[in-house]
Amino acid sequence: MQRATRALLDADSDAAQAVILGHEDITALTGHAEESAFVLLALQARVAGDLRAVVSAIHIAAEVRRMGALAVHVAEIAHRRHPSHAVPDEVSPYFEEMGSRAVELGSNARLVLMSPDPRRAAQIRQDDDEIDELHGRLRAVLMDRRWAHSVAAAVDVALLGRFYERYADHAALIARCIIFQATGHHDLQAIGERRHAQPAIQGR
Amino acid sequence: MQRATRALLDADSDAAQAVILGHEDITALTGHAEESAFVLLALQARVAGDLRAVVSAIHIAAEVRRMGALAVHVAEIAHRRHPSHAVPDEVSPYFEEMGSRAVELGSNARLVLMSPDPRRAAQIRQDDDEIDELHGRLRAVLMDRRWAHSVAAAVDVALLGRFYERYADHAALIARCIIFQATGHHDLQAIGERRHAQPAIQGR
Repeated sequence: MQRATRALLDADSDAAQAVILGHEDITALTGHAEESAFVLLALQARVAGDLRAVVSAIHIAAEVRRMGALAVHVAEIAHRRHPSHAVPDEVSPYFEEMGSRAVELGSNARLVLMSPDPRRAAQIRQDDDEIDELHGRLRAVLMDRRWAHSVAAAVDVALLGRFYERYADHAALIARCIIFQATGHHDLQAIGERRHAQPAIQGR
Repeated sequence: MQRATRALLDADSDAAQAVILGHEDITALTGHAEESAFVLLALQARVAGDLRAVVSAIHIAAEVRRMGALAVHVAEIAHRRHPSHAVPDEVSPYFEEMGSRAVELGSNARLVLMSPDPRRAAQIRQDDDEIDELHGRLRAVLMDRRWAHSVAAAVDVALLGRFYERYADHAALIARCIIFQATGHHDLQAIGERRHAQPAIQGR
């Protein structure tokens, strides 16, 4: 973060690239730490299943809490702009689509929680990718010089886009957590790759 | 999220308020789920200390990974804007201050990890509050009609502010996790209140 801040304030491209490349190390290290923790849990073989369920439950509660906070962030922007619309008509369809995908993700995550279903989990992954894609296109609209609305509206739209993207990511993490619990395969590598891939989407 | 999206797209203030008020229930429910999970862990009395350490380690790894991703997001914006500065001079001091507080938070979280020290944990809470405060003031600058820079710059500044705010929050969560591990007091109520208080800051 120190180097990222320097890159930001000094417009230092080398520093920025060093941060981006260095992220692979963090992903590898945190993945390794989690892996070791899971191995330690597995060593408690007698109660391994229960423990895994308990750890999943703790994770899921934290993800749900964050999803709730993100929905509140969306509602607050709507509330602050009332009676005006926070979102210009031009970008409304993005939020229609992100909103309905996000809700679908949330309810699929809930269904997977009640009955782990790899096919539904795959649907979640697909919806999450779709929201990332929409988010990327929304960012492009904002960055376009032809943006005809206020700066305040652009700021709101940028943050709203981010909130939906995060919401989707948390729902996807819940699904992964449950699939891990059901199959014992925690797919950390895939999570690590996604986390690492995310900045590229961000950078579009 | 469904209701929040409706509030957003229909400029429906009642729906927005219902979401904001309903957040207390989510906070209470997720807190309750975590509480129960911790109780279940504690029932494994023979190995409770080890398990608590393992669960903390899993949490901390996830938080560190997210902090890394946020630093990358900052670096990417710096990189994309190079050789220009992503941040107009006018708001540079905010990022100087948020950047140095964020780095301090990160290194204090690391120190608390090596030796749990409630005084240092209190410092972390204070730095986190300070960053929330700076973030609120930065949002006010962006929303001011006198903003003289481009829409793209405003979007970058809004997202950057959010990234620093999130980074600080993850560092603070690590500290809480460690203090829980050291003291057995997981301070969920305080986290719940903070989570619930956050939107008010956001709404400034």
